[in-house]
Amino acid sequence: MNRNPTGLSPRFHNEVPQDDDRERRVCDHCGFVDYENPRIIVGSVAIWEDRVLLCRRAIEPRRGYWTLPAGFMEKGESPGEGARREAWEEARAELEVDQLLGVYSVPHVGHVQMIYRARLLSDTIAPGPESEEVKLFPFDALPPLEERAFPSVSWALRHYLETRERIDFAPRSAPLPEADEAVPGL
Amino acid sequence: MNRNPTGLSPRFHNEVPQDDDRERRVCDHCGFVDYENPRIIVGSVAIWEDRVLLCRRAIEPRRGYWTLPAGFMEKGESPGEGARREAWEEARAELEVDQLLGVYSVPHVGHVQMIYRARLLSDTIAPGPESEEVKLFPFDALPPLEERAFPSVSWALRHYLETRERIDFAPRSAPLPEADEAVPGL
Repeated sequence: MNRNPTGLSPRFHNEVPQDDDRERRVCDHCGFVDYENPRIIVGSVAIWEDRVLLCRRAIEPRRGYWTLPAGFMEKGESPGEGARREAWEEARAELEVDQLLGVYSVPHVGHVQMIYRARLLSDTIAPGPESEEVKLFPFDALPPLEERAFPSVSWALRHYLETRERIDFAPRSAPLPEADEAVPGL
Repeated sequence: MNRNPTGLSPRFHNEVPQDDDRERRVCDHCGFVDYENPRIIVGSVAIWEDRVLLCRRAIEPRRGYWTLPAGFMEKGESPGEGARREAWEEARAELEVDQLLGVYSVPHVGHVQMIYRARLLSDTIAPGPESEEVKLFPFDALPPLEERAFPSVSWALRHYLETRERIDFAPRSAPLPEADEAVPGL
Protein backbone atom coordinates (compact mmCIF):
# COMPACT_ATOMS: atom_id res chain seq x y z
CA MET A 1 0.00 0.00 0.00
CA ASN A 2 1.36 3.38 -0.96
CA ARG A 3 1.51 5.24 2.32
CA ASN A 4 3.18 8.33 0.93
CA PRO A 5 1.51 9.20 -2.39
CA THR A 6 3.26 12.54 -2.79
CA GLY A 7 6.75 11.08 -2.33
CA LEU A 8 7.58 14.09 -0.18
CA SER A 9 9.51 14.32 3.09
CA PRO A 10 8.51 16.80 5.78
CA ARG A 11 10.11 20.21 5.32
CA PHE A 12 9.64 22.90 7.92
CA HIS A 13 9.66 26.68 7.98
CA ASN A 14 9.07 28.90 11.00
CA GLU A 15 5.92 30.93 11.41
CA VAL A 16 3.55 32.12 14.15
CA PRO A 17 0.36 30.06 13.77
CA GLN A 18 -3.03 31.75 14.18
CA ASP A 19 -3.95 32.27 17.87
CA ASP A 20 -0.38 31.54 18.94
CA ASP A 21 2.22 33.94 20.35
CA ARG A 22 5.49 32.49 19.08
CA GLU A 23 7.13 30.92 16.05
CA ARG A 24 6.57 27.21 15.49
CA ARG A 25 7.87 24.77 12.92
CA VAL A 26 5.20 24.37 10.23
CA CYS A 27 5.54 21.85 7.40
CA ASP A 28 5.79 23.44 3.93
CA HIS A 29 3.90 20.55 2.41
CA CYS A 30 0.99 19.85 4.69
CA GLY A 31 0.72 22.68 7.22
CA PHE A 32 1.41 20.41 10.21
CA VAL A 33 2.43 22.50 13.25
CA ASP A 34 5.21 20.83 15.23
CA TYR A 35 4.86 22.29 18.71
CA GLU A 36 8.15 20.76 19.88
CA ASN A 37 7.10 20.49 23.48
CA PRO A 38 9.76 19.70 26.03
CA ARG A 39 10.27 15.99 26.32
CA ILE A 40 10.26 14.01 29.55
CA ILE A 41 13.05 11.55 30.27
CA VAL A 42 12.21 9.05 33.02
CA GLY A 43 14.76 6.90 34.80
CA SER A 44 15.94 5.53 38.10
CA VAL A 45 18.72 5.11 40.58
CA ALA A 46 17.94 1.43 41.10
CA ILE A 47 19.51 -0.22 44.12
CA TRP A 48 20.26 -3.82 45.08
CA GLU A 49 21.99 -4.26 48.45
CA ASP A 50 23.92 -0.97 48.36
CA ARG A 51 24.87 -1.37 44.74
CA VAL A 52 23.48 0.70 41.88
CA LEU A 53 22.47 -0.47 38.42
CA LEU A 54 24.31 1.17 35.54
CA CYS A 55 24.16 0.40 31.82
CA ARG A 56 26.91 0.84 29.23
CA ARG A 57 25.25 2.39 26.20
CA ALA A 58 25.18 0.42 22.94
CA ILE A 59 23.72 3.39 21.04
CA GLU A 60 24.60 6.97 20.25
CA PRO A 61 24.86 9.47 21.77
CA ARG A 62 27.63 8.51 24.19
CA ARG A 63 27.93 4.91 23.05
CA GLY A 64 30.22 2.93 25.37
CA TYR A 65 29.63 5.21 28.37
CA TRP A 66 27.82 4.32 31.58
CA THR A 67 24.38 5.67 32.34
CA LEU A 68 21.33 5.11 34.50
CA PRO A 69 18.44 3.17 32.97
CA ALA A 70 16.41 6.03 31.51
CA GLY A 71 14.70 7.15 28.33
CA PHE A 72 11.83 9.08 26.81
CA MET A 73 8.52 8.73 28.58
CA GLU A 74 5.77 7.32 26.36
CA LYS A 75 2.18 8.45 26.15
CA GLY A 76 -0.15 6.21 28.17
CA GLU A 77 2.18 5.64 31.11
CA SER A 78 2.95 7.52 34.30
CA PRO A 79 6.54 8.71 34.94
CA GLY A 80 7.06 5.87 37.44
CA GLU A 81 5.75 3.30 34.95
CA GLY A 82 8.12 4.73 32.37
CA ALA A 83 11.07 4.35 34.74
CA ARG A 84 10.13 0.69 35.27
CA ARG A 85 9.79 0.10 31.52
CA GLU A 86 13.19 1.64 30.81
CA ALA A 87 14.88 -0.54 33.45
CA TRP A 88 13.36 -3.58 31.77
CA GLU A 89 14.24 -2.49 28.23
CA GLU A 90 17.83 -1.55 29.01
CA ALA A 91 18.79 -4.02 31.74
CA ARG A 92 16.05 -6.67 31.98
CA ALA A 93 15.69 -5.44 35.53
CA GLU A 94 12.49 -5.38 37.56
CA LEU A 95 12.09 -2.69 40.11
CA GLU A 96 9.82 -1.04 42.59
CA VAL A 97 9.76 2.71 42.17
CA ASP A 98 10.08 4.75 45.34
CA GLN A 99 10.38 8.54 45.52
CA LEU A 100 11.11 11.18 42.93
CA LEU A 101 14.82 11.87 43.49
CA GLY A 102 15.57 14.60 40.98
CA VAL A 103 13.92 16.83 38.40
CA TYR A 104 16.70 17.95 36.08
CA SER A 105 15.65 20.53 33.55
CA VAL A 106 17.83 21.00 30.47
CA PRO A 107 16.08 23.95 28.80
CA HIS A 108 18.42 24.41 25.83
CA VAL A 109 17.64 20.91 24.56
CA GLY A 110 14.07 20.94 25.84
CA HIS A 111 14.38 17.98 28.21
CA VAL A 112 13.04 17.46 31.70
CA GLN A 113 14.53 14.44 33.42
CA MET A 114 12.50 12.81 36.19
CA ILE A 115 14.75 10.37 38.04
CA TYR A 116 13.25 8.10 40.71
CA ARG A 117 14.79 6.22 43.57
CA ALA A 118 14.01 2.53 43.08
CA ARG A 119 14.62 -0.89 44.59
CA LEU A 120 15.57 -3.81 42.35
CA LEU A 121 13.41 -6.87 42.97
CA SER A 122 16.40 -9.16 42.33
CA ASP A 123 19.97 -9.00 41.07
CA THR A 124 18.99 -10.78 37.86
CA ILE A 125 19.97 -8.30 35.15
CA ALA A 126 21.03 -8.64 31.51
CA PRO A 127 21.74 -6.20 28.68
CA GLY A 128 18.74 -5.17 26.58
CA PRO A 129 19.19 -4.13 22.94
CA GLU A 130 20.36 -0.61 23.83
CA SER A 131 23.03 -1.73 26.34
CA GLU A 132 26.44 -3.32 25.77
CA GLU A 133 26.78 -4.30 29.41
CA VAL A 134 24.84 -3.86 32.66
CA LYS A 135 26.33 -4.07 36.12
CA LEU A 136 25.67 -3.40 39.81
CA PHE A 137 28.30 -1.01 41.16
CA PRO A 138 29.17 -0.43 44.83
CA PHE A 139 29.22 3.31 45.54
CA ASP A 140 32.93 3.23 46.37
CA ALA A 141 33.77 1.74 42.97
CA LEU A 142 31.64 3.68 40.49
CA PRO A 143 32.84 4.25 36.93
CA PRO A 144 35.04 7.38 36.91
CA LEU A 145 33.51 10.67 35.76
CA GLU A 146 35.06 10.41 32.29
CA GLU A 147 33.32 7.08 31.69
CA ARG A 148 29.85 8.39 32.53
CA ALA A 149 27.51 9.30 29.70
CA PHE A 150 25.88 12.47 31.05
CA PRO A 151 26.34 14.94 33.94
CA SER A 152 22.90 13.96 35.24
CA VAL A 153 24.22 10.46 36.02
CA SER A 154 26.52 12.02 38.60
CA TRP A 155 23.83 14.39 39.90
CA ALA A 156 21.42 11.54 40.50
CA LEU A 157 24.03 9.35 42.21
CA ARG A 158 24.99 12.24 44.47
CA HIS A 159 21.37 13.07 45.26
CA TYR A 160 20.72 9.42 46.05
CA LEU A 161 23.53 9.39 48.60
CA GLU A 162 22.35 12.67 50.12
CA THR A 163 18.82 11.38 50.65
CA ARG A 164 19.19 7.63 51.06
CA GLU A 165 18.08 7.67 54.72
CA ARG A 166 15.08 9.90 54.07
CA ILE A 167 11.53 9.03 53.17
CA ASP A 168 9.90 12.38 52.45
CA PHE A 169 12.02 15.00 50.71
CA ALA A 170 11.86 17.46 47.86
CA PRO A 171 13.31 16.23 44.56
CA ARG A 172 16.66 17.78 43.84
CA SER A 173 17.42 20.02 40.85
CA ALA A 174 20.39 20.15 38.53
CA PRO A 175 23.25 21.80 40.43
CA LEU A 176 24.70 25.10 39.33
CA PRO A 177 27.73 24.50 37.10
CA GLU A 178 30.34 25.40 39.72
CA ALA A 179 28.83 22.93 42.19
CA ASP A 180 30.01 20.04 40.03
CA GLU A 181 33.54 20.65 41.30
CA ALA A 182 32.55 20.28 44.91
CA VAL A 183 32.33 16.51 45.22
CA PRO A 184 35.25 14.85 43.44
CA GLY A 185 34.29 11.49 41.98
CA LEU A 186 30.58 12.18 42.23
CA MET B 1 4.56 33.80 -0.22
CA ASN B 2 2.94 30.42 -0.77
CA ARG B 3 3.91 28.43 2.28
CA ASN B 4 1.88 25.37 1.43
CA PRO B 5 2.38 24.65 -2.29
CA THR B 6 0.61 21.28 -2.21
CA GLY B 7 -2.54 22.70 -0.61
CA LEU B 8 -2.66 19.61 1.60
CA SER B 9 -3.45 19.27 5.29
CA PRO B 10 -1.65 16.71 7.44
CA ARG B 11 -3.28 13.30 7.39
CA PHE B 12 -2.03 10.53 9.63
CA HIS B 13 -2.03 6.74 9.56
CA ASN B 14 -0.52 4.43 12.20
CA GLU B 15 2.63 2.42 11.53
CA VAL B 16 5.72 1.19 13.36
CA PRO B 17 8.65 3.28 12.07
CA GLN B 18 12.01 1.64 11.38
CA ASP B 19 14.04 1.03 14.58
CA ASP B 20 10.98 1.67 16.72
CA ASP B 21 8.94 -0.78 18.77
CA ARG B 22 5.43 0.65 18.65
CA GLU B 23 2.95 2.30 16.33
CA ARG B 24 3.28 6.02 15.72
CA ARG B 25 1.23 8.52 13.75
CA VAL B 26 2.90 9.03 10.36
CA CYS B 27 1.69 11.63 7.87
CA ASP B 28 0.36 10.13 4.62
CA HIS B 29 1.65 13.09 2.67
CA CYS B 30 5.14 13.76 3.92
CA GLY B 31 6.20 10.85 6.15
CA PHE B 32 6.50 13.02 9.27
CA VAL B 33 6.51 10.85 12.41
CA ASP B 34 4.50 12.43 15.21
CA TYR B 35 5.96 10.89 18.37
CA GLU B 36 3.23 12.38 20.55
CA ASN B 37 5.36 12.56 23.64
CA PRO B 38 3.59 13.25 26.89
CA ARG B 39 3.21 16.97 27.40
CA ILE B 40 4.17 18.86 30.54
CA ILE B 41 1.73 21.30 32.11
CA VAL B 42 3.33 23.73 34.55
CA GLY B 43 1.45 25.82 37.05
CA SER B 44 1.30 27.10 40.58
CA VAL B 45 -0.63 27.44 43.79
CA ALA B 46 0.30 31.11 44.14
CA ILE B 47 -0.31 32.68 47.53
CA TRP B 48 -0.74 36.25 48.76
CA GLU B 49 -1.37 36.57 52.51
CA ASP B 50 -3.28 33.30 52.89
CA ARG B 51 -5.25 33.80 49.72
CA VAL B 52 -4.77 31.81 46.53
CA LEU B 53 -4.81 33.07 42.96
CA LEU B 54 -7.44 31.50 40.71
CA CYS B 55 -8.38 32.39 37.13
CA ARG B 56 -11.76 32.02 35.45
CA ARG B 57 -11.08 30.56 32.02
CA ALA B 58 -11.96 32.61 28.93
CA ILE B 59 -11.14 29.70 26.62
CA GLU B 60 -12.23 26.12 26.04
CA PRO B 61 -12.05 23.59 27.50
CA ARG B 62 -14.00 24.49 30.65
CA ARG B 63 -14.60 28.10 29.73
CA GLY B 64 -16.05 30.03 32.66
CA TYR B 65 -14.65 27.66 35.31
CA TRP B 66 -11.98 28.46 37.88
CA THR B 67 -8.47 27.10 37.55
CA LEU B 68 -4.91 27.61 38.74
CA PRO B 69 -2.59 29.60 36.47
CA ALA B 70 -1.09 26.77 34.41
CA GLY B 71 -0.40 25.73 30.84
CA PHE B 72 1.88 23.85 28.50
CA MET B 73 5.57 24.17 29.25
CA GLU B 74 7.56 25.64 26.35
CA LYS B 75 10.92 24.53 25.06
CA GLY B 76 13.76 26.72 26.35
CA GLU B 77 12.39 27.20 29.86
CA SER B 78 12.58 25.24 33.10
CA PRO B 79 9.34 24.03 34.73
CA GLY B 80 9.60 26.80 37.34
CA GLU B 81 10.12 29.43 34.66
CA GLY B 82 7.10 28.06 32.85
CA ALA B 83 4.98 28.37 35.98
CA ARG B 84 6.06 32.02 36.31
CA ARG B 85 5.29 32.71 32.64
CA GLU B 86 1.82 31.18 32.92
CA ALA B 87 0.99 33.29 35.99
CA TRP B 88 1.97 36.37 34.03
CA GLU B 89 0.08 35.38 30.87
CA GLU B 90 -3.12 34.42 32.65
CA ALA B 91 -3.24 36.81 35.60
CA ARG B 92 -0.53 39.45 35.07
CA ALA B 93 0.84 38.14 38.35
CA GLU B 94 4.50 38.02 39.34
CA LEU B 95 5.60 35.26 41.60
CA GLU B 96 8.51 33.56 43.24
CA VAL B 97 8.41 29.81 42.74
CA ASP B 98 9.03 27.70 45.80
CA GLN B 99 8.79 23.90 45.95
CA LEU B 100 7.29 21.33 43.64
CA LEU B 101 3.93 20.62 45.24
CA GLY B 102 2.46 17.95 43.00
CA VAL B 103 3.26 15.79 39.98
CA TYR B 104 -0.08 14.73 38.56
CA SER B 105 0.16 12.22 35.77
CA VAL B 106 -2.82 11.81 33.45
CA PRO B 107 -1.65 8.89 31.26
CA HIS B 108 -4.76 8.52 29.10
CA VAL B 109 -4.38 12.04 27.75
CA GLY B 110 -0.58 12.02 27.93
CA HIS B 111 -0.19 14.91 30.34
CA VAL B 112 2.12 15.34 33.30
CA GLN B 113 1.22 18.31 35.47
CA MET B 114 3.98 19.87 37.56
CA ILE B 115 2.39 22.26 40.06
CA TYR B 116 4.61 24.46 42.22
CA ARG B 117 4.01 26.27 45.46
CA ALA B 118 4.63 29.97 44.85
CA ARG B 119 4.50 33.33 46.58
CA LEU B 120 2.96 36.31 44.79
CA LEU B 121 5.22 39.37 44.82
CA SER B 122 2.19 41.66 45.14
CA ASP B 123 -1.58 41.54 44.98
CA THR B 124 -1.58 43.40 41.67
CA ILE B 125 -3.33 41.01 39.30
CA ALA B 126 -5.41 41.43 36.15
CA PRO B 127 -6.95 39.08 33.58
CA GLY B 128 -4.69 38.09 30.68
CA PRO B 129 -6.20 37.17 27.29
CA GLU B 130 -7.09 33.61 28.41
CA SER B 131 -8.89 34.67 31.62
CA GLU B 132 -12.31 36.28 32.12
CA GLU B 133 -11.56 37.15 35.71
CA VAL B 134 -8.76 36.62 38.24
CA LYS B 135 -9.16 36.73 41.99
CA LEU B 136 -7.45 35.97 45.30
CA PHE B 137 -9.58 33.53 47.31
CA PRO B 138 -9.35 32.86 51.04
CA PHE B 139 -9.20 29.09 51.64
CA ASP B 140 -12.50 29.14 53.52
CA ALA B 141 -14.30 30.73 50.56
CA LEU B 142 -13.00 28.85 47.52
CA PRO B 143 -15.21 28.37 44.47
CA PRO B 144 -17.33 25.23 44.99
CA LEU B 145 -16.22 21.98 43.32
CA GLU B 146 -18.71 22.35 40.50
CA GLU B 147 -17.20 25.70 39.50
CA ARG B 148 -13.65 24.37 39.27
CA ALA B 149 -12.25 23.54 35.84
CA PHE B 150 -10.32 20.33 36.58
CA PRO B 151 -9.93 17.79 39.40
CA SER B 152 -6.24 18.74 39.66
CA VAL B 153 -7.26 22.21 40.88
CA SER B 154 -8.71 20.57 43.99
CA TRP B 155 -5.78 18.17 44.37
CA ALA B 156 -3.27 21.01 44.32
CA LEU B 157 -5.25 23.14 46.77
CA ARG B 158 -5.53 20.20 49.14
CA HIS B 159 -1.84 19.35 48.80
CA TYR B 160 -0.96 22.97 49.46
CA LEU B 161 -2.91 22.93 52.72
CA GLU B 162 -1.34 19.62 53.74
CA THR B 163 2.20 20.90 53.26
CA ARG B 164 1.98 24.64 53.85
CA GLU B 165 4.11 24.52 57.02
CA ARG B 166 6.79 22.31 55.47
CA ILE B 167 9.93 23.22 53.58
CA ASP B 168 11.25 19.88 52.34
CA PHE B 169 8.70 17.31 51.24
CA ALA B 170 8.02 14.93 48.39
CA PRO B 171 5.66 16.23 45.71
CA ARG B 172 2.24 14.68 45.95
CA SER B 173 0.62 12.52 43.26
CA ALA B 174 -2.91 12.45 41.91
CA PRO B 175 -5.11 10.74 44.50
CA LEU B 176 -6.86 7.49 43.77
CA PRO B 177 -10.39 8.17 42.49
CA GLU B 178 -12.16 7.22 45.72
CA ALA B 179 -9.99 9.61 47.73
CA ASP B 180 -11.71 12.56 46.07
CA GLU B 181 -14.72 11.91 48.25
CA ALA B 182 -12.75 12.17 51.46
CA VAL B 183 -12.41 15.93 51.82
CA PRO B 184 -15.69 17.63 50.99
CA GLY B 185 -15.17 21.01 49.42
CA LEU B 186 -11.54 20.32 48.61
